[in-house]
Parts: sequence; structure tokens; C-alpha cells
Amino acid sequence: MIHSDFIHHNPKLHIFLPLYYTLWTDSILTPTEIKEMEALIDRQEWLSVEEKAWLLEKLNPTRPPSPKDLKTIRKEIRSLEIKELESLTSIGIALVRKYNPELTFSQKTIIDFYNTERNLGLLGKEAGYAFKSGHQTLTTDHQAQQNFDVHEMTKVLDGNQAALIRKVKTIISDPTFAFREYESLKEQREQTLIWCQELARQGFGAWAYPGFADGKDDMEGYFTIMETLSYHDLSMVIKFGVQFGLWGMSIYFLGTEKHHRKYLKDVGSLKLPGCFAMTETGHGSNVRGLETTATYNHSKKTFTIHTPHPDARKEYIGNAAMHGQMATVFAKLIIDGEDFGVNAFIVPLRDAQGDMVPGVRIEDCGRKMGLNGVDNGVIYFDQVEIPKENMLDRFSSINDSGEFESPISSDNRRFFTMLGTLVGGRIGIPRSALSAAKTGLTIAIRYAEKRRQFGPEGGEEVPIMNYRMHQRRLIPPLATTYALQFALRYLTQRFLNRNEDDAQEIEALAAGMKAYTTWFTTAALQECREACGGKGYLSENRIDALKNDTDVYTTFEGDNVVLMQLVAKNRLTEFRQEFSDMNMFTVFNYVVNQAKTSITEKNPLIVRNTDQAHILDMDFHLNAFRYRERAILASAAQRIKRHIDSGMDSFDAFNIVQHHLIQVGQAFIERIILEEFQKAVEEMKDKRIEDALTQLCQLYALHTIEKNSTWYLEQGYMEGVKTKAIRKEVNQLCWEIRKNALALTDAFDIPETCIAAPIARRI
Amino acid sequence: MIHSDFIHHNPKLHIFLPLYYTLWTDSILTPTEIKEMEALIDRQEWLSVEEKAWLLEKLNPTRPPSPKDLKTIRKEIRSLEIKELESLTSIGIALVRKYNPELTFSQKTIIDFYNTERNLGLLGKEAGYAFKSGHQTLTTDHQAQQNFDVHEMTKVLDGNQAALIRKVKTIISDPTFAFREYESLKEQREQTLIWCQELARQGFGAWAYPGFADGKDDMEGYFTIMETLSYHDLSMVIKFGVQFGLWGMSIYFLGTEKHHRKYLKDVGSLKLPGCFAMTETGHGSNVRGLETTATYNHSKKTFTIHTPHPDARKEYIGNAAMHGQMATVFAKLIIDGEDFGVNAFIVPLRDAQGDMVPGVRIEDCGRKMGLNGVDNGVIYFDQVEIPKENMLDRFSSINDSGEFESPISSDNRRFFTMLGTLVGGRIGIPRSALSAAKTGLTIAIRYAEKRRQFGPEGGEEVPIMNYRMHQRRLIPPLATTYALQFALRYLTQRFLNRNEDDAQEIEALAAGMKAYTTWFTTAALQECREACGGKGYLSENRIDALKNDTDVYTTFEGDNVVLMQLVAKNRLTEFRQEFSDMNMFTVFNYVVNQAKTSITEKNPLIVRNTDQAHILDMDFHLNAFRYRERAILASAAQRIKRHIDSGMDSFDAFNIVQHHLIQVGQAFIERIILEEFQKAVEEMKDKRIEDALTQLCQLYALHTIEKNSTWYLEQGYMEGVKTKAIRKEVNQLCWEIRKNALALTDAFDIPETCIAAPIARRI
Repeated sequence: MIHSDFIHHNPKLHIFLPLYYTLWTDSILTPTEIKEMEALIDRQEWLSVEEKAWLLEKLNPTRPPSPKDLKTIRKEIRSLEIKELESLTSIGIALVRKYNPELTFSQKTIIDFYNTERNLGLLGKEAGYAFKSGHQTLTTDHQAQQNFDVHEMTKVLDGNQAALIRKVKTIISDPTFAFREYESLKEQREQTLIWCQELARQGFGAWAYPGFADGKDDMEGYFTIMETLSYHDLSMVIKFGVQFGLWGMSIYFLGTEKHHRKYLKDVGSLKLPGCFAMTETGHGSNVRGLETTATYNHSKKTFTIHTPHPDARKEYIGNAAMHGQMATVFAKLIIDGEDFGVNAFIVPLRDAQGDMVPGVRIEDCGRKMGLNGVDNGVIYFDQVEIPKENMLDRFSSINDSGEFESPISSDNRRFFTMLGTLVGGRIGIPRSALSAAKTGLTIAIRYAEKRRQFGPEGGEEVPIMNYRMHQRRLIPPLATTYALQFALRYLTQRFLNRNEDDAQEIEALAAGMKAYTTWFTTAALQECREACGGKGYLSENRIDALKNDTDVYTTFEGDNVVLMQLVAKNRLTEFRQEFSDMNMFTVFNYVVNQAKTSITEKNPLIVRNTDQAHILDMDFHLNAFRYRERAILASAAQRIKRHIDSGMDSFDAFNIVQHHLIQVGQAFIERIILEEFQKAVEEMKDKRIEDALTQLCQLYALHTIEKNSTWYLEQGYMEGVKTKAIRKEVNQLCWEIRKNALALTDAFDIPETCIAAPIARRI
Repeated sequence: MIHSDFIHHNPKLHIFLPLYYTLWTDSILTPTEIKEMEALIDRQEWLSVEEKAWLLEKLNPTRPPSPKDLKTIRKEIRSLEIKELESLTSIGIALVRKYNPELTFSQKTIIDFYNTERNLGLLGKEAGYAFKSGHQTLTTDHQAQQNFDVHEMTKVLDGNQAALIRKVKTIISDPTFAFREYESLKEQREQTLIWCQELARQGFGAWAYPGFADGKDDMEGYFTIMETLSYHDLSMVIKFGVQFGLWGMSIYFLGTEKHHRKYLKDVGSLKLPGCFAMTETGHGSNVRGLETTATYNHSKKTFTIHTPHPDARKEYIGNAAMHGQMATVFAKLIIDGEDFGVNAFIVPLRDAQGDMVPGVRIEDCGRKMGLNGVDNGVIYFDQVEIPKENMLDRFSSINDSGEFESPISSDNRRFFTMLGTLVGGRIGIPRSALSAAKTGLTIAIRYAEKRRQFGPEGGEEVPIMNYRMHQRRLIPPLATTYALQFALRYLTQRFLNRNEDDAQEIEALAAGMKAYTTWFTTAALQECREACGGKGYLSENRIDALKNDTDVYTTFEGDNVVLMQLVAKNRLTEFRQEFSDMNMFTVFNYVVNQAKTSITEKNPLIVRNTDQAHILDMDFHLNAFRYRERAILASAAQRIKRHIDSGMDSFDAFNIVQHHLIQVGQAFIERIILEEFQKAVEEMKDKRIEDALTQLCQLYALHTIEKNSTWYLEQGYMEGVKTKAIRKEVNQLCWEIRKNALALTDAFDIPETCIAAPIARRI
């Protein structure tokens, strides 16, 4: 079936050539295909008997054309330089005309060929692309653009902290902070310490402390420092946080003036490295169950710190394995055999020469999944005696008669007040996590712009950023990153301005934001790893470190599942306070009142409304989020109540609805995030920034609704046509935002030395 | 408000004690609480004016009780040893009676107290738990049980491969294979090589090769070996796979007798370490675009292998950085300036002394996220000349006249046939992944049985395995692991018995199973990490290595997104072949016919059927899966056709529906998995094994339907009441299967030396 054969016979036979080529190339000739072709040939009255026989012979599956034959045919067809492809039939006709422009076919013949092509399932135009050259498509042409001023966007993100952010970025871009590979754990830990010392020298360590400790009394700045450092090595960030945050702030917030004067300056300068020894092997998230004891000896005015059994050893304690000289130890205070609950004490571990204090035993936690620059250890105390003044006595103390005293009478309340002062960690961690997500997305999106794979037949390869699935993987996380930026700023402000009345609400908010952000970061970095393929697996491209270092963020400062339940319980308490008599009717009325707009939206026209304007409407988004938040909370409360009313133990009742409670927590956090993002968008003055943020805000909203679409459908809040329209709009927004994607990561303004990945290098 | 004060006044005042205690303990006294209590006191006609004044004074928020007071009250109430708690009121009455059994209260008073309790939102019984001792609950009591014979289950899982599995497990349990920590990359790579040499000595390397190469001609056994080795170190497994699978089998399947005789024995014994050099920096998944050239020189009867530009260098090549002496190199064959497509050639890299062959340059890929025992490298060829016989010439060759010859004429078809022989990697990888998931789940479930956190007030701490969210995290993956076991066995059998007719179908099946299984493993190990909290983060507990080593499984042997599209395209082709005229009406009829049962199920009674028997019915499950598979395929086809008909380029049309295509692939794979699991369950003879597997099979089915519930709701295939009932049943199945969870992981029969994690140690 070579080309010259066709010419040799009758140029009109060329009309078969594209069909033959396609059938032989695509796969082996199937019986159906042969039958269909035989019938076609048979029907052509313009063919002679010999020509028919000859054509039929070319369909013999045992006598396929040679590779060279197929190549020749392809070359021949390509030489036509076809621009617009209609069908294989039209290509065939064009071939015929090339040899003799006078030759024609009847309408009937053309339709017959065309139908055969359809019957063979060759999908019309698709098959023809094999013959096209320099093939441009929508997908090929979709390019990175930039619809806004990147520097303006950076200003929006940095807000009033721009100057400090600039300062921190300048320091971590210094060659002293260049990334390096380590031969051993010890080497990595020493480097991490050196970096922290360098940061202390710059004054960053004491930033939140009072002036007498060389600080700036600037807690907001402390969070900014944590966040900005997190573009660099995360072991450094966590060691920084252990020293200046956990260790230093436990003294600052749980101790009194005498402790502040004695320790804070040396903590802030890192002259006195220390630990925060709360978690025990047997008690992670359940801090109230701690078993280390601090027994008061009134005659000697001392406490004896003791680990009663191995499960009560302090575990995962940062700075313990190598550098820590002291620790804030959380232990049950025992006076005259009576237990006064968990309190905090300063306990020496090592002297300045690094020799262990008698009675203290420390084991090294060894290698971890990540954060290997932090020297985590396990601490055992064997009757370690400390002076009375080492009790951090802001919330409880022992008077001169040896009696326990506290301004807060309830053990519970005192305990939670004490923990409440430490809630800053639940702000620093998500802000650090978000920086890691930003770096990961910057790397993955830059790579996706450069990397080309596949493409239309005969066309150039396409940047993988143009593929819809790649957009689905990277663009919604980009939108969520922007959303979280504003929500974490809000959380920080609430925290800085908190008072006794809203303290519990803010603790719940911090717990929820910590859980939501760190889960998001883990998932986003996993997508980044996979989106960068094999390159993402090489350590030099940094996603390895980003993913593994942040992986424990979902665990420390409180396990995310436990935290989300805490959020849910806080919401239930508020709910309960709003109306104490929780019968079904009241709850129903309540939800109805709270969600009036939503009920309006439940009218049939709205649950089915698929207009793009409506789907993109920010009020629709916020109403949907609010409706979900209230309704899911109310139904959780009802379920718990129903179980308890039917005689179930409340502990069991809460366990049965645990999965539901996590949703309650998430719905609350998601509403806050959307609300803050929308507020931020409204405040924008630069139109192009506003437009760019609006798209991101819409995508965050719709992607979240899409994630929860089962629930909305179950509630009858939306019908299937609407959830489908939302899915379509999510895809469309990804496609649109993709143009800005590179610029949106540029606006994070991460130092190039921190991005560091070779695949993300600017060309 | 100390206890003695109450006695001092009037024992009947004790009725207030539990309320007072609870209000002061739970939180600060709020204005509402004070008002409510004041009103209660005021209404009690049985109180004297002095008693009322005294009680009111105890509500003064500036004069809280001391911590010691609260403790005393609690002790007093606990001493009642209350078994059944009704309300705080009833506790109060019991306290009163303790002091004087004759004292009584009017019905009106009791109701008044009870209502106050409700109004204060103290949720009746819940508040009372603070006073209970040794508090047992459903959650506390839920224990691990074992409802089947573990050894029998292991037999079911091992099937006809039990003897070989036993042999492999014995070898990897040998002290030679003890896990160790490495000081350096080099050390880890050397250890990995030594382990592979040890395995080769046992005959495992050559297992699939012919007898003359000291093999057993047993491909099924080769997969079993890969799978079983994967309980041990995964660097070892991948290096094993590179050497004996990729390198050896490329010679075996792409070469001819002369190559087999010359190389296979030395490959199988690891005397000749080699590489499989396909992927290029510029071309990962898109193998057809490879740019390395193999130019034929007829006069010298040689090929010149050349890297035309840096992006055409071979990348991520296992065994290249240190140990490989030869490589199967995939390159475009050029004869007389004409391109004959990708072919495979054996090219020497190093001599036996490890010195590089002239013209070959290799760079080390360095550290990776995981698999650091495998020495991946980058290879550049600078005009490297090899003899003509080094072309692997099973599917194409050069004849004596210097012309290209092939039994397969179509370039496309030849290319895919060639790749098709290498599809074994897409079976070995998911089987290896599943072993890693099994190890991770074994560790996490064992830990969850031992680890206790929180618990009912006054009760013991509860194993975290009893928490519903923990079950939600670990039990569905356990069910999926069992499901995949049978599906991968099916895939293996199909592969071993494949013929020309079903080769493409099996390739699609392998691609889909590889993508599905490796995504599952990545997600499951992430859950395991988080479920083990801080312990899961320590490297000693092995989840670090399991997660990081398998992370690249979603990328190599074909990127999962690309593979799932390949599956979808294969399904579309089959679909297209079934009815070539794809107009809407035909498609609709077709789907209707194919899914007759489903349509019956679309009647209003069935879409709302929430009977447990129906929800658990395996026919319902399979019908739902099949319906989804057909309907989602048909709608994808329609969408593509609609786009193309409206004038869109087919490349764009496929890109627009890319997200949809991934679903098409998944739905197909999920149907296969369920079908095979159900078949396996049906075949069970041991009733208790059958019961255990039935629950797992139901959970796999319902959890998958739950994941896709938006789609089922959109289709009207289910209504909200039904998807809610399914969610409830998933929770319930998790709760039930939890009893068997430990035994189900024991049935994997993973050597204890391989589990190794201290947190998973048998007590």
C-alpha cells in the first residue's frame, strides 16, 4: 500500500489514503474495521473491479504496510500543509486534487466516506491532527500574564510589618545563611544553633520581651519574624521558637517580675538556652494528665521534681538533647500529699559547661522525619531539688505558711488560663506553615511554567501549567494561601487585643486556624511534590525539606483532631449559652432566624440558579458558608442531645459524633477565613489588585463549597445543576487565575536564596 | 462556701452544693448564671431570710471559693459513690439525705431545681460526671477481639505463593538484613548493594529468567518476591527492581536469544549491574519525545549513541551514580538521516573496575526525599560507539543491507508493543506500595491499641483506637488494603495470561491499578504518620522511611495523572468501538441498557432506601459502582464530542475534560477492585473469614460511594437521606471492624524484624 501504488493505479484512489493510514497506524485492523471498509469499497460505483480488488487486498491483516510506507504517506499528506481540518475524507479529496485539480467526487460519495469515518469512530477532526504541522491550540497559547503590579501586591501582603519583613529577609539572604548539606545530625544541629545565635545577635530573639531584657515589647513583630524566617530553614525556625517562644515566653507569661529580671535577657541573647518540658510520653495532647511531680518541702523551701515512672518522662523536648541548660517543667504540684494540679517550674538541666545536673537524665530522640536541626530529647528527673523561687508563680504560689494560693479558685480555670497564655504558639505555627506552603507553591508553579510535556499532534509541547489537572492541583492551594494570609493576620490582631471576655473565643480560633492551616500545608506540599514529578523528589529542589519539616506541624502545639474538637466544643458552649433550652423547636427557629437569607435562597429558583453572575457572587458565597456553619452546629448539638436523652453517656455521645464535630470546627474556621478575605478585597484601592484578589477569593469560596457539596445537596440548599455549575466555575477560575499564577507567587517576595531550588531558577 | 458552712446552717442547703460546685468549676460566674441562681433562691419558700442571704453571698464573683474548698466539695460528693446519674438536683438531694435520711423536698421544688439546671445549660447528666468514679462507658469498653483464625486469613492472602513468601520472609528476617542507621549516602548505597547481592545469591534475582540463566522462568514468583521484600527496606526493593526487573527484563523482553545468552546470567547474579536509561530531563512521561540519538553507521556496523543537548540527558537513572556497568538506553534510531523512532540499545558505562567508558559522563542525583540507598544518576553520551549487535532487536532490527525492518509496521504500534512488554513494572510497584501500606497500618493500629489518651470524667484513659475519628483514619485504609490485595492478584493473573487481544486492556488496567494503589499508599501513610502523633515523626518508628521511600511511586513508572488519563482514553476507545455513532440518543440508550438494574434503582423508593439491609447489600454496591463507571464514561465522551463538534481542537477538548477523565479512570478501577473483592468473599469457605472479609468489602464499597456521593446525588441515583445513611453505616462498620483491626494486621504476617518500630512492639 505504498503511495506510488496509488498513483500507479488511479489518482482518485487517494481518497482512501488518509483512512488507510489512520487505520493501520492507530492499531491493528479489527474485523469490524475491515468489514466497514469492504462495504465502503463495494459501494463505490466509480471504481473498476480491478481497483476494488486491489484496494481490498490492502486490507489484508497478514500483509501490513511497512514502517517506511507509512512514513512516506504521512510525509505526503503533511506536504499539503492543511490549515483547517474537516475530516479524513476532505484530506483524501485534497490529495486527489493535488495530482489532478480537475478530478471530482459526487455528493453521495463524499457523504458515504464521511459516514464511514464516523462509523469507524475516528472522531472526525481528531484523527486528522496526525497530518497537521505547527499545530496551535487554546492550550498551547495560554500564557502567563500579569494583570497587576507585583510590588503593590507585596505591600498588601506585608501590611504594616513591611519594614521588619524587609529586615529579616535581608538577614536570611546573607551568605552566612546559605543552605548546605550535612554530614551528620550533630553538624546540622550545630549549624542550626549558630543560625539562632546570629538571629539573637540581630535582636530578633528578645523582640517580644520588655526593654530591660533588650526587647522591643513587640509581640506582633515576633510573629512576623517567625513567619519570615520560615522562608528559610525550618529547623532554625523551630529551634528559634523553642528558645525565644516556648522557653522564654513561659517565663514571661507564667513567671513574675523576679523571673523576668533574672532570666529574660539571657534567654533573648541565647546565652541561656532552655527547654519547654510539657509533653510526657504517656500524655501528649492531654496535658491535664501529666504525671511528673513537684513536691513541696516547706522546711527546706524547695521543690523536688520527679519522674514517677517511665511513661511520665518528658518527651520530644526541643533543645534537650544537646544545648538546653534549663527547662520550664510542667508538673503536678504536691503539698502535704495533696495534688494541686499542673504548675510550671524552672529546672536546671546542664551547667554552662554542658555537664548534666545530678538527677537529670536525657536521651536523644535521634533522627526524625524532618526538623533534624532541632535536638529533641527525652528527660527523666530523679528527685531533682530546686529552690522555691523557681516556681513560675503568676497564677499560683505557695505562701509563707506553705499553703497553696491562687487568684483563680477553680483548678480547671486556672489550668486553662495558664495554657491560654501560651496560645501564641498556635499563631506562630500556622504562620510558619503558610510560609512553607508559599515556598512550595512558588517552586512548583515556576517549574510548571518552564516544564513542557506532550502537546497537540504535530504541535509544540505545552507548559504543564496549561493542563487542567495541573491547575486543579496548584491553583486552589494558591487561592487558599492568599485566603489564609488575611485570616492569620486577623487572628494575630484578635490575639494581640484580647481581653478576659473574648479569651476563650480567641483560643478556639487559634486552635482551629492552627489545625486548618497545617493540614492545608501538608496537603499543598504533597501536591507540589507530585506536581514536580521526579524533580520534586530530589532534595536539592527543597520540597523534601519543606514537606518533611512541616509534617509534624499537624501534631505539635496540639494534635489537629484534638484541636478541631476543642473548637467544636467551644462553639457548642457558645450555642448553648445563646439558648439554654435546647428543644428541637427552639433550635429550628434559631437556625431559621440566623440564616434568613439562606432560607430565601432555598426557594426553588435559587437552589437551581446556575447563572455565572450568581455563582460568582460573593454574598452567595458568604451566605452559604454561614448557613453551613450554623446548621451543622445545630445538628451536632441535636445529635448529642438526642443521644444523651436516650440514656447514653455523654462521653460516648461526643465520641459518636466526633466526625461531625470536626466538620463543625472546619465550617466555623472556613467562614472566618472567607469573611476576612472578602473584607480585605473590599478594602483594596488598586483596581487591578482588587480584581486579582477577587478571583482568588471566589475560587477559595467555590472550591470550599465544592468540597462540601455533598452536604449542600443533602440539605437541599443546592441542587445538582448548581453544584455542577460550581465545579465548572472552579475549573474556569483555575484557567483564568493561571495567567496570574507566576505573578501571584512573585508577590510573596521570597528571597531567591531561600527558594534555592534549581528547578525554580529564573531563566 | 466550704462544705462545713453548709452543715453549719441547714443540711437541706446541700441541695445547692452540686450546682454551686459546677458553676464555680466550669468557668467564671456569668451575670446570667448569677441571675438564674438568685431567682431560684428567691423562689424557695422553705428557706429562711438568713439562709437566702447566706446563699446569695456565696454567689459573689469577687469572693470565689478557694481551690481547697472546691476539692473538699468534690471529695464529699464522690464519697456518695453514685452509680446512675440523673441530674445535679438528684445528687444534691442524695447529699441532703446522707446527713438526714428523713429530709424531703416537695415535687415543685425538685422541678424548680431541675429546670434551673436545664436553663443553665448544664446538659443534665454530663455535668454530673465530674462526681463519678471509675466511670465505664461504651467507648471505654470497646476492645480488640478476634473473630477469625489469623493463620487462616494469612493463607487466604498468600494464596498459592505461600511457600515462596515464607522463603523470602525467612531471608529478610536474617540478622544480615537488620535495619541500621547510615552515616552517609555512600554507606547506605553500599549496604543496599550488599543486600541485593545477598538476594541474588539466594536466586531471587534470576527468578523470572530462563533456566539457562539460573532462573525459574517464574514471573509470578518475581512479583511475589518484590512484594514480600517490600516489608523490608524499600531502597533495597527499588535497587532490586532496577537491576533484575528494568535492566534484566529489558534485555529479556526487548532483546533476542543472543542477548539472553550473553547477559541474563550475569545480570541475575548481579555480576553485571546495569541501568534502564529511558527517562530524559526534558521528557519524563512523554517517552515518545525522547531525543537521545542512536545513529547507524552501516560501513562500521555500529551505532553512535549521543546526547544532542543537555535536556536530552538521561535523568534519575537508578544504579547509574555508582554501580552500573551497562545500560539499556532508549534512543531515536537514525538511519541515513531518517528517524525510525525510539529503540533500545545496550551501552557500556563503566568497566569492571568501575572506570567510566570514554564519552560517558555521569552526575550523581544526590540526596532524595527517600530511596537514598539507590544511586540515581544523570547520564550524558558524547558520541559513544557500540556494535550493531547491541541493538535489542526483538521488535525492530537492521538488515544486512542496512535497512530498518520490523514485524510491526506502524511506528505507533511498535512503540506501544515495546513499552507493553515493560508493563510488569506497573504491577511490581503497586504490589510493593501495598506492602508499605500494610506495614504502616500495622504500626499505627498496634500503637492505637496501646496508646491511651483522655477518657470520661473520673474514668480511665481510653485506647485511641476507640475514638471514632481515629477509626475513620485507619479502618477504611485497612479495608482498602484488603480490597487491593485481591485486585492486584487479579491484575497479576491477567498479565501472566495476556494475549494480543487483551494486551491493551491489561496495560490500561495496570496503569490504573498503579496510579490508584500508589495514591492510596501515599494518603494512607500520611494518615498513619499523623495518627501516631509525635511518635510517628521519629525515624525509629519507620513511618518516616515508609512514607518518603514510597512517595515517588506516584511519579515513576509513569506519573499517576498521566496514567489515569491513559486509562480513560483506553475506556473511551473501547466505548467508541462498541458504538461508533455517538449521538446523544444512542449513548443514552446504551447507558440505559447497560445499567438496567440501576434504572430500576432510580425509582423513588430505592433512591431513598435507607434500610440497613439494603445499604449493606453487596449487589447494591456493585450496581452503584457499575452505574457510575458507565455513566461517567458516557458523559465524558459526550462532552468531548460536543466540544469537538462545536469546532474546538481535540487537544483542547481533552484538556477541558481532564479532571473528568481522571474520574473515568478511577471509576473503572474501583469497579474492578470491588468486583474482585466480592468474588473473593464469595469463594471463602471458612465462615468466620468470610464474615470478616464481608465487613471489609462492605466498608470499601460504602466508603468509596461516600467519597463519590456528590456525584450520586447530582445524578439522582441517591437522595440525601440515603447518602446520610451510608455515612452512618461507614462509621458503624469502622466501629465494628475496629475489634478485628489488630488481628487483620496480624494476618499480613509481616516479620517483626521488618516492623521494627518500638511503638509497635508486642507487649
